[in-house]
Amino acid sequence: MGYRDNLQLTPDKKLRHFISIEGLPRSILNEILDTAETFSSVGEQAVKKVPLLRGKTIVNLFFENSTRTRTTFELAAKRLSADVLNFSVSTSATKKGESLLDTLQNLEAMQCDMFVVRHSQSGAAQFIAQNSPAHISVINAGDGNHAHPTQAMLDMFTIRRHFKTFAQLKVAIVGDILHSRVARSQIHALTTLGVDEVRVIAPKTLLPTGIENLGVHVFHNMKDGLSDVDVVIMLRLQKERMEGGFLPSEKEYFRHYGLTTEKLAFAKSTAKVMHPGPINRGVEIASDVADGERSVILEQVTNGIAVRMAVMSMCMGRYSTIKEGA
Amino acid sequence: MGYRDNLQLTPDKKLRHFISIEGLPRSILNEILDTAETFSSVGEQAVKKVPLLRGKTIVNLFFENSTRTRTTFELAAKRLSADVLNFSVSTSATKKGESLLDTLQNLEAMQCDMFVVRHSQSGAAQFIAQNSPAHISVINAGDGNHAHPTQAMLDMFTIRRHFKTFAQLKVAIVGDILHSRVARSQIHALTTLGVDEVRVIAPKTLLPTGIENLGVHVFHNMKDGLSDVDVVIMLRLQKERMEGGFLPSEKEYFRHYGLTTEKLAFAKSTAKVMHPGPINRGVEIASDVADGERSVILEQVTNGIAVRMAVMSMCMGRYSTIKEGA
Amino acid sequence: MGYRDNLQLTPDKKLRHFISIEGLPRSILNEILDTAETFSSVGEQAVKKVPLLRGKTIVNLFFENSTRTRTTFELAAKRLSADVLNFSVSTSATKKGESLLDTLQNLEAMQCDMFVVRHSQSGAAQFIAQNSPAHISVINAGDGNHAHPTQAMLDMFTIRRHFKTFAQLKVAIVGDILHSRVARSQIHALTTLGVDEVRVIAPKTLLPTGIENLGVHVFHNMKDGLSDVDVVIMLRLQKERMEGGFLPSEKEYFRHYGLTTEKLAFAKSTAKVMHPGPINRGVEIASDVADGERSVILEQVTNGIAVRMAVMSMCMGRYSTIKEGA
Repeated sequence: MGYRDNLQLTPDKKLRHFISIEGLPRSILNEILDTAETFSSVGEQAVKKVPLLRGKTIVNLFFENSTRTRTTFELAAKRLSADVLNFSVSTSATKKGESLLDTLQNLEAMQCDMFVVRHSQSGAAQFIAQNSPAHISVINAGDGNHAHPTQAMLDMFTIRRHFKTFAQLKVAIVGDILHSRVARSQIHALTTLGVDEVRVIAPKTLLPTGIENLGVHVFHNMKDGLSDVDVVIMLRLQKERMEGGFLPSEKEYFRHYGLTTEKLAFAKSTAKVMHPGPINRGVEIASDVADGERSVILEQVTNGIAVRMAVMSMCMGRYSTIKEGA
Repeated sequence: MGYRDNLQLTPDKKLRHFISIEGLPRSILNEILDTAETFSSVGEQAVKKVPLLRGKTIVNLFFENSTRTRTTFELAAKRLSADVLNFSVSTSATKKGESLLDTLQNLEAMQCDMFVVRHSQSGAAQFIAQNSPAHISVINAGDGNHAHPTQAMLDMFTIRRHFKTFAQLKVAIVGDILHSRVARSQIHALTTLGVDEVRVIAPKTLLPTGIENLGVHVFHNMKDGLSDVDVVIMLRLQKERMEGGFLPSEKEYFRHYGLTTEKLAFAKSTAKVMHPGPINRGVEIASDVADGERSVILEQVTNGIAVRMAVMSMCMGRYSTIKEGA
Repeated sequence: MGYRDNLQLTPDKKLRHFISIEGLPRSILNEILDTAETFSSVGEQAVKKVPLLRGKTIVNLFFENSTRTRTTFELAAKRLSADVLNFSVSTSATKKGESLLDTLQNLEAMQCDMFVVRHSQSGAAQFIAQNSPAHISVINAGDGNHAHPTQAMLDMFTIRRHFKTFAQLKVAIVGDILHSRVARSQIHALTTLGVDEVRVIAPKTLLPTGIENLGVHVFHNMKDGLSDVDVVIMLRLQKERMEGGFLPSEKEYFRHYGLTTEKLAFAKSTAKVMHPGPINRGVEIASDVADGERSVILEQVTNGIAVRMAVMSMCMGRYSTIKEGA
């Protein structure tokens, strides 16, 4: 498996950091899903809180602004009864690696327990994990084009809730694969969990070279790509990418790759529609599909809290407590 | 009563949202005041906390910046033991109604329980309440020129503490009625609670047309308007309005409508002076009056916490608990 | 002694505010150090929390931006179980003294218990303490060039941990004494606690006139100044000062006053190196010294939480509780 596997797991194969799906064994992914299942009822209780991480300090270390992602991690931490520090770091103040390390060492010296890291550069969360002492856990909340593993796991959780098992499923990921950390993490999660087939559907300009090596089938049109699939995962079109000459126009993109009721008809009649949000209505997905019966987009958001609670509690090495105690 | 009554109350006439005083029956306003009375001692306890909303998630959804109002709601929520999410939304990012709804649906999917909404546009809180599922309560923390109902209720609470009853009172509201959401909510609260007389005192340019239809008496000078009143409510002069040609100058405004000791002498000798804050000293009120014996301005701030705790706990349908339980 | 002593202590000589080391007796400083000792284990517990200030409201009133200092106070408050309000005040909004007082009075009316104040102007924390009612405590988190007393006390705590006693120690403070609130507070703390000798080492342009009156010995070169000292406290070089013509260049400064292994050899072989952070590597201190065996810079950060917990709990007049209760 390589270095990531060593970094993310303790010697006895427990989750220590959560940086990337790549390199994690299927057993760990299943443990995350099972643990999330035990947390999924917390949000429906009158008192939406478990005392699992009481007295722990979790730092949201966001080098890139993302109210939405930060909010879901903050909620997950609070529902585990942890104390949360929101520590926004302007990239300019830490552009020297030296100075970033000093910031980290200071937060460690304050006896913080976990860093939830968002950064515009691929590899940032891993760099931080590599430079953290034994008692600190690092969770990747999105790094550059590299990975967004909690997003991928909430997608897996949502798929498992609807289809029970992964073995027979055909899943299509549609859109800007090239720039998407979400897509990379989803592909690794789906293949590790053993789905029947992973497809990517995108224009050539939005596909990385050698994507086939990840075990996916490549399609350039929706009709062929969606044929017979169980799950359609739409990606958000980053509007800032449009200016780079990757795409002709939003309208043109929507005509070819936007998910409409007509195109969804190519998939199985039982197919579910997913999207990591926030959605661009009329760009990558039609409003009636996003809000339609087959959309599970808002379930994904709900499941995101439970999955993040699971990853946080597992990294803090206290998963055993919840089974025995509460 | 009309649609607001239906929106704000449950079928069995309990408070569900708190959007506007207009349309609420006197019994609900009295219930808010009585409930606030039970909370007013919490701030004086050694442990300023009751466990009433423990495990609830309250979102401060501020589309307009207001540190002060946000702080009072945050304090009220924390003293009820709720978890608070501060979610500042730049208006630009949500200028499409579509996108605002998506933000809301996401927060709902995160199983938040209450939105405290501040928005520069009239009707925003109502729009959000109309588009929220059954388990969510919405509290209006100020929308455009429309309403600021918790401010009005803390004013009523302050009046009741000093005068015991509303029936005999003459109350004058002085200043920029035209642009004031506070004045609108105060007028509805005072008339619903049955004061003897509500007066508004303002230059013609700062009065909305048809204001008499709300049951108020209009005055254009302080001498006549303040004559014999029990309560003088000064409004904040929004300085940005001055540029619109509504007013000649701050000095001129103060000369005619600024509350000085001399002008206060027109009111009853027992009259109290109120102001929603923050005050512009020397613009709408003289410093010696603001800080004087008859000013209850800081009591209003203190009462604001208890009133917001009351509205929050009533909306969460748990008012019964506090009576029985704690 | 003088007025500060009266302001900071209650009639029965308990700590009420913590504005400045100057004027506080040695017994209070020792009580802070002893109390911090009882808190220093909290950060190592599984549940890093004591219930001492539960239900108290502590306001971080920062008129000057400082994520790092705010974070340490926020952590200290949360580990004491207090509720924390972060109230950032742009200086522009409160440039009139009048308006600052109104902000304070409003926070007091909200029944807040403590203000942690950071301000670019010397005397700000004292001004706020002088204008606060009896139940409010004010802690100075840095005011202009005047004082930063919690920083000085965490330095004393770190020194005492390593050397047990102050009596025999020679301590050198190196760098921009002229602009440093930290240095002023350190000098007062060291002399009050009775060290053998306090030295300052700096170029003439970075020394205030009359510094000898504080009981320190002045040196202008590192060789003489560091000779035989037990503790070397480096100050951060504020880069914005460089432009004022105080210094020729960073490189030149480092050559003369930057702490290198070579210069550290002038001190005792047991000498410890301290720095209030954040460090400018290669400007006032070489990286290998900052990260070396004799550096206790990160211990200072850890100790800062315990010392701030001590000061907060002592000011809240509840120190007795922890001894008896928990």
